[in-house]
Amino acid sequence: MASPNRIPEIRKDTVNNRWVIFSPARSRRPSDFKSKSNPVNPTSQPECPFCIGQEHDCAPEIFRVPAAGPDWRIRVVQNLYPALSRDLESSGELAGRPGGGSVALSGFGFHDVVIESPVHPVHLPDLDPVEIGDVFMAYKKRIEQLQCYDSIQYVQVFKNHGASAGASMSHSHSQMIALPVVPPTVSTRLDSMKEYFGQTGKCSLCEIRFDALLIDESIHFISISPFAATFPFEIWIIPRYHSSHFHELDGVKAIDLGRLLKLTLRKMNAQLNSPPFNFMIQGSPLQVSPAQLPYTHWFLQIVPQLSVVGGFEMGTGCYINPVFPEDAAKLLREVSISS
Amino acid sequence: MASPNRIPEIRKDTVNNRWVIFSPARSRRPSDFKSKSNPVNPTSQPECPFCIGQEHDCAPEIFRVPAAGPDWRIRVVQNLYPALSRDLESSGELAGRPGGGSVALSGFGFHDVVIESPVHPVHLPDLDPVEIGDVFMAYKKRIEQLQCYDSIQYVQVFKNHGASAGASMSHSHSQMIALPVVPPTVSTRLDSMKEYFGQTGKCSLCEIRFDALLIDESIHFISISPFAATFPFEIWIIPRYHSSHFHELDGVKAIDLGRLLKLTLRKMNAQLNSPPFNFMIQGSPLQVSPAQLPYTHWFLQIVPQLSVVGGFEMGTGCYINPVFPEDAAKLLREVSISS
Repeated sequence: MASPNRIPEIRKDTVNNRWVIFSPARSRRPSDFKSKSNPVNPTSQPECPFCIGQEHDCAPEIFRVPAAGPDWRIRVVQNLYPALSRDLESSGELAGRPGGGSVALSGFGFHDVVIESPVHPVHLPDLDPVEIGDVFMAYKKRIEQLQCYDSIQYVQVFKNHGASAGASMSHSHSQMIALPVVPPTVSTRLDSMKEYFGQTGKCSLCEIRFDALLIDESIHFISISPFAATFPFEIWIIPRYHSSHFHELDGVKAIDLGRLLKLTLRKMNAQLNSPPFNFMIQGSPLQVSPAQLPYTHWFLQIVPQLSVVGGFEMGTGCYINPVFPEDAAKLLREVSISS
Repeated sequence: MASPNRIPEIRKDTVNNRWVIFSPARSRRPSDFKSKSNPVNPTSQPECPFCIGQEHDCAPEIFRVPAAGPDWRIRVVQNLYPALSRDLESSGELAGRPGGGSVALSGFGFHDVVIESPVHPVHLPDLDPVEIGDVFMAYKKRIEQLQCYDSIQYVQVFKNHGASAGASMSHSHSQMIALPVVPPTVSTRLDSMKEYFGQTGKCSLCEIRFDALLIDESIHFISISPFAATFPFEIWIIPRYHSSHFHELDGVKAIDLGRLLKLTLRKMNAQLNSPPFNFMIQGSPLQVSPAQLPYTHWFLQIVPQLSVVGGFEMGTGCYINPVFPEDAAKLLREVSISS
């Protein structure tokens, strides 16, 4: 499949309120995109603290699944090198900072790791849908624990796969950082979705379906290439039901999401040569008002690492994407996966 | 110099309105930061289209310095693979896009390259201050040409040095992309600086000086580690005079800036093992109203590439910086450079 002789186009991501430049002239054919580096786990790694039997080398455990006994399938543990400290007072603004509008807060927060499998060579898409569902239910349980802290405003769940995508450990894991502030992308997204709701009376993510961008669908979810994808082959998995928060997920929907995520990652790996990737659960602040509920809607964003960010992107916050999302969607829709 | 036993801190970048987590626990000592990859130009590269004598392999020239004759020192040329097209109608919104609030514009714009030297192995900091000043005056001249197009709203000047910082050519060059939209970082910065001005009646960048963050100063500029630096060892060079737009620079100030940029890059290279880096001129939209002039102030942002961006940063827009800016400033201030 060749990209037709397309001219560049500037699209607005109306969910995140940013502009993306689609520039096919800078590209190989969309079907030629392949990752050069693909992170492969060795079948075992001596002294990996995430492996079963090495629990003593890990930071303290928060909980395991199942809840007791040595034969765990999932462990949620503290990060040994946390970005934020759970031991600090969440005391608001720090004094004694220089003038000129400077603001500093104590670095209170939580930084946890979800070990997705007890054994080293297993990646997330190797698990079956029920097991992936269990990982989601572990996220949910930990978010529910974290929202008991009054000063925690947002929990970012994310996965880095591959060193160049930020993973320092090759054993399959995801991370959760609980923050005492609402991050900028979240407040920008909220403002943007509010604006759309104000204009149309509808939730922009309930409305997003467009057949040329659809990759797959399940009972409760769809996977799409977003109309103004920031990155080539970026994928969003969106609940078909309206929901502000990931942790509203129940066990049945978790398995359904597990099945669609497994299919999506396997297709991405087949099409793009198992690239390093990130996924992020894009949600809402823990406290949303009743007025915000109609337009807040979580989704899972998957970004394969295929391009380098340079000075233009850092300077402007605009990204240049060489692949039109409808081309990416078509390729991913048509990948055949043996089950 | 060791980092004292610092606790994590969350600082607000009040210029760009974003939160940065300072997390020394995740770090080596600040003085141990060294780049592993350092881009080295071969002394010559056959068929490099940016080299003198190879002009026929380049996209069309816009102008050269000096203006005529074969012995140029700087050339401004079109990018052979432009992100935007100068040949399109700047006709506003494209029709026939899917619903759900989708917005798309024709990809009208300019994407130019500034070749900073006629010979391959010369990097920007190898030039003398007058020659670097000439590069700045070439930026200025090209911006003044681009602002004649009514639909161009912003010109991003940037430099990618090293493949992992986004450079596809090793010959020393910078780039300019002229956009028909105001990018999100620019409008966010404008809002943020307006807010500070509203509260204090002052320009936040005129007020930014704080001795612990100062690296160097010249007659017209200061170089600092910003209080809430997004990246480790990020540096801002800020005019000491209030100025909304880079292209207000005159020849005398251009040489002064050339001297300070040369010193800054040489210090960065000495301290950090010549890392790949980006610099960006952070300015204002081409049209600013008289009411905006008192709080808009351009600066040059330099970001050495020392860390990997992962899912947390992509998801939240919050960055984790392992080096406190006052530690980075002290190290850079004390680097001794033989002149």
